[in-house]
Amino acid sequence: MASQVELTRDFINDLRNAIRNGEDKVALKMIEDFHAADIAELYSDLSLEESRYLFMLLDGELASDVLTELDQDEREEFLEVLPGEVIAQKFIDYMDSDDAADIIGDMSEEKKQEVLLHIDDVEQAGDIVDLLAYDEDSAGGLMAKELIRVNENWTILTCLKEMARQADDVDEVYYVYVVDDGNILKGIVSLKEMLLNNNSTRIRTILEEDIQSVRTDTPSEEVAQIMEKYDMVAIPVVDSIGRLVGRITIDDVVDVIREEAERDYQMASGLIDEVDESDKIFTITRARLPWLTIGLGGGILGALILGQFEGSLRLYPEMAFFIPLIAAMGGNVGIQSSAIIVQGLANKTLRTDRTWQKLGKEFIVALLNGILLAALIFLYNFIVSDSFALTITVSAALVSVIVFAAMVGTLIPLLLHRLDIDPALATGPFITTMNDIVGLFLYMIIGRGLYAYFQG
Amino acid sequence: MASQVELTRDFINDLRNAIRNGEDKVALKMIEDFHAADIAELYSDLSLEESRYLFMLLDGELASDVLTELDQDEREEFLEVLPGEVIAQKFIDYMDSDDAADIIGDMSEEKKQEVLLHIDDVEQAGDIVDLLAYDEDSAGGLMAKELIRVNENWTILTCLKEMARQADDVDEVYYVYVVDDGNILKGIVSLKEMLLNNNSTRIRTILEEDIQSVRTDTPSEEVAQIMEKYDMVAIPVVDSIGRLVGRITIDDVVDVIREEAERDYQMASGLIDEVDESDKIFTITRARLPWLTIGLGGGILGALILGQFEGSLRLYPEMAFFIPLIAAMGGNVGIQSSAIIVQGLANKTLRTDRTWQKLGKEFIVALLNGILLAALIFLYNFIVSDSFALTITVSAALVSVIVFAAMVGTLIPLLLHRLDIDPALATGPFITTMNDIVGLFLYMIIGRGLYAYFQG
Repeated sequence: MASQVELTRDFINDLRNAIRNGEDKVALKMIEDFHAADIAELYSDLSLEESRYLFMLLDGELASDVLTELDQDEREEFLEVLPGEVIAQKFIDYMDSDDAADIIGDMSEEKKQEVLLHIDDVEQAGDIVDLLAYDEDSAGGLMAKELIRVNENWTILTCLKEMARQADDVDEVYYVYVVDDGNILKGIVSLKEMLLNNNSTRIRTILEEDIQSVRTDTPSEEVAQIMEKYDMVAIPVVDSIGRLVGRITIDDVVDVIREEAERDYQMASGLIDEVDESDKIFTITRARLPWLTIGLGGGILGALILGQFEGSLRLYPEMAFFIPLIAAMGGNVGIQSSAIIVQGLANKTLRTDRTWQKLGKEFIVALLNGILLAALIFLYNFIVSDSFALTITVSAALVSVIVFAAMVGTLIPLLLHRLDIDPALATGPFITTMNDIVGLFLYMIIGRGLYAYFQG
Repeated sequence: MASQVELTRDFINDLRNAIRNGEDKVALKMIEDFHAADIAELYSDLSLEESRYLFMLLDGELASDVLTELDQDEREEFLEVLPGEVIAQKFIDYMDSDDAADIIGDMSEEKKQEVLLHIDDVEQAGDIVDLLAYDEDSAGGLMAKELIRVNENWTILTCLKEMARQADDVDEVYYVYVVDDGNILKGIVSLKEMLLNNNSTRIRTILEEDIQSVRTDTPSEEVAQIMEKYDMVAIPVVDSIGRLVGRITIDDVVDVIREEAERDYQMASGLIDEVDESDKIFTITRARLPWLTIGLGGGILGALILGQFEGSLRLYPEMAFFIPLIAAMGGNVGIQSSAIIVQGLANKTLRTDRTWQKLGKEFIVALLNGILLAALIFLYNFIVSDSFALTITVSAALVSVIVFAAMVGTLIPLLLHRLDIDPALATGPFITTMNDIVGLFLYMIIGRGLYAYFQG
């Protein structure tokens, strides 16, 4: 039984030594129990030359699996120096059509042609060219062409023989798809039914017709939603007239689901692109700067607003003490409210009607939070501060800011969703900045009024 | 072929009328093409009484599927009024053991006993009791007992017959698990191998031994990582001595993956519990208040710090204008930095060694961002403001705050991870609050110094 692989520093050092000394057999022996995903993880521990050397030692099947497991950046770095012929024959020939199309799709036009020309299996090359035509973010871009296809007019016996023949190309058999003579998808047939019925039974009679399918142009996110909702491990893909052209397996969709959930978090954190720590400094800077610039613009607006109250600030400098508190609370509440809405929209648990009801509820939650927190800060200021005007101002402003921020945080994502704009865009820096500014304004207006009342 | 179901307002009204008038056949006819997941979605459109009426009309198989698809809150509301006997015989009898255990596990002790006593199938009741003993967040809590199990000493023919018999209990056959006489998991056997070999071949000879498995006490998140890494649709679960006790399918793990990704976003947004918009006002308030209270504490600290600089603020009230900008930028940068680290840790793309190298890189990114933004605000103040001291102060403070916030945002999650505390805890309000306070302090210190230099 294979167990999880642990990469110790000693192991890595021994492996590097074996590679550097050209001890191919020793190196291969060290990783003989590794799954392709484990070998791919070695990439970040070895130098580019070392991993290239090691991966070229592997047999074609395993080498192509490792290539599929690498990150896109790593893979490009790796393939860059290899001639198209080597890529085609060492790697692509062994891959499923969808993995091959993903990898070739990332290449330059020139390299793409070079690789395609050197694929020995004409059918495989044709499949890849077909797949390259689909949008990356559609069912066509996710699907593989390999699947088990049987005719509804066959008997179970013919079907079993055909399955054995076709299974050679398919890694895992999840469903057997049934088509008519015109390749129109009619349904699936389960192994169970085949085992339970007589060998001369026609497939047509044991067919399950009531199945979900998607079209080649169905967006990836919708494919993920359907598969998640109906708990499917594979879904057939048909063209515009219902002909079976491929299938999508859940492992490819898990990536879509994870990426979608992560993108919301990224946007809420003010990153406009998927970046990770290993990306280039320039890439990370570029992903971060836009939101920061908006934040800077918000800060300047805040300065302009406070500038209008210079007189009050000169007379009552203690008012400035609570500016950070008011700004921060508005931001925090706004982010909380919007996160609840954005996640509800993303995982489809939120119904988008009854907007007023939602706002009403959020109003009550915010008022409750606001009153509790205002009472706390009232107590603090009542004990610590000499100025009763300040004490009242901070508490009154806090309640207003929290309620306002909660309304904005709820309404903006709902509004964007209705306008078909990704609501996650609104969360994070944008809502924070907006609430900062309005919060400051409310604070200063309330303060000026109350000071005038208590001290004028 | 089933297509996606669209719930129009008219459809819902017609359905409600049919239910209210007791037209059972009309109502059932309306939803005859619905998948269980579609029927479960009706729950939020109907009143509690209406959905209860409708669901009780369904046959046992479908009704139990619908119950599995409901949210936990909806399900509890729904089952509350039903006697244990009805729950056991109308629903639980038809369920897979893992779904049944999930549902019964959520019930009160009393109700649990009542339901368990009324399950007719003794084997099923035993399986459920076994499963209830496992931690919800472990492989044991995720697994189902239903699977196809064959003996390594059987021939392919015996095996096919046994599969047909066992398949009756199992919804989907993904893998056929092979055990020895002591029920120790030996590997899997693929359909392909069975089809390609002679019927009298022993399973032992076509067995694939090199497979991944998990133990009942493996944490859910680790199960998800293994299945995602190795692209598996089902994984066998063994006990501490290697006996096969169950299997986990990918659809249950997809939920774990999504919840994990969502939890990071929630924490970063300052929500301490999984809440959605439909939760009770009290639940939502309770999830939000803790972080807001911390934010309030941070605001008070900020006020205390600014209080130390009352003299400067009285002399140069324009310094107050840029307090929100400095605080906001520190917060934004800190969130960005920590989000990159938290996501990298969550999806395992981040290596946790080379901390100094990471900090060095983050330092350069922050310095780059800081200098660019400081140049922008310098330009603005140089044109708009009369005070050169202010112009220099804001820009110098901005660079310091951005660099400091980036270091904190990078270091804290890495530190928490090393201490085995969920790093997502640190993001959002906590890091924002901390950066706010330190940012204010830096701003005022730099300001006092520069004003003294330029105007003193």
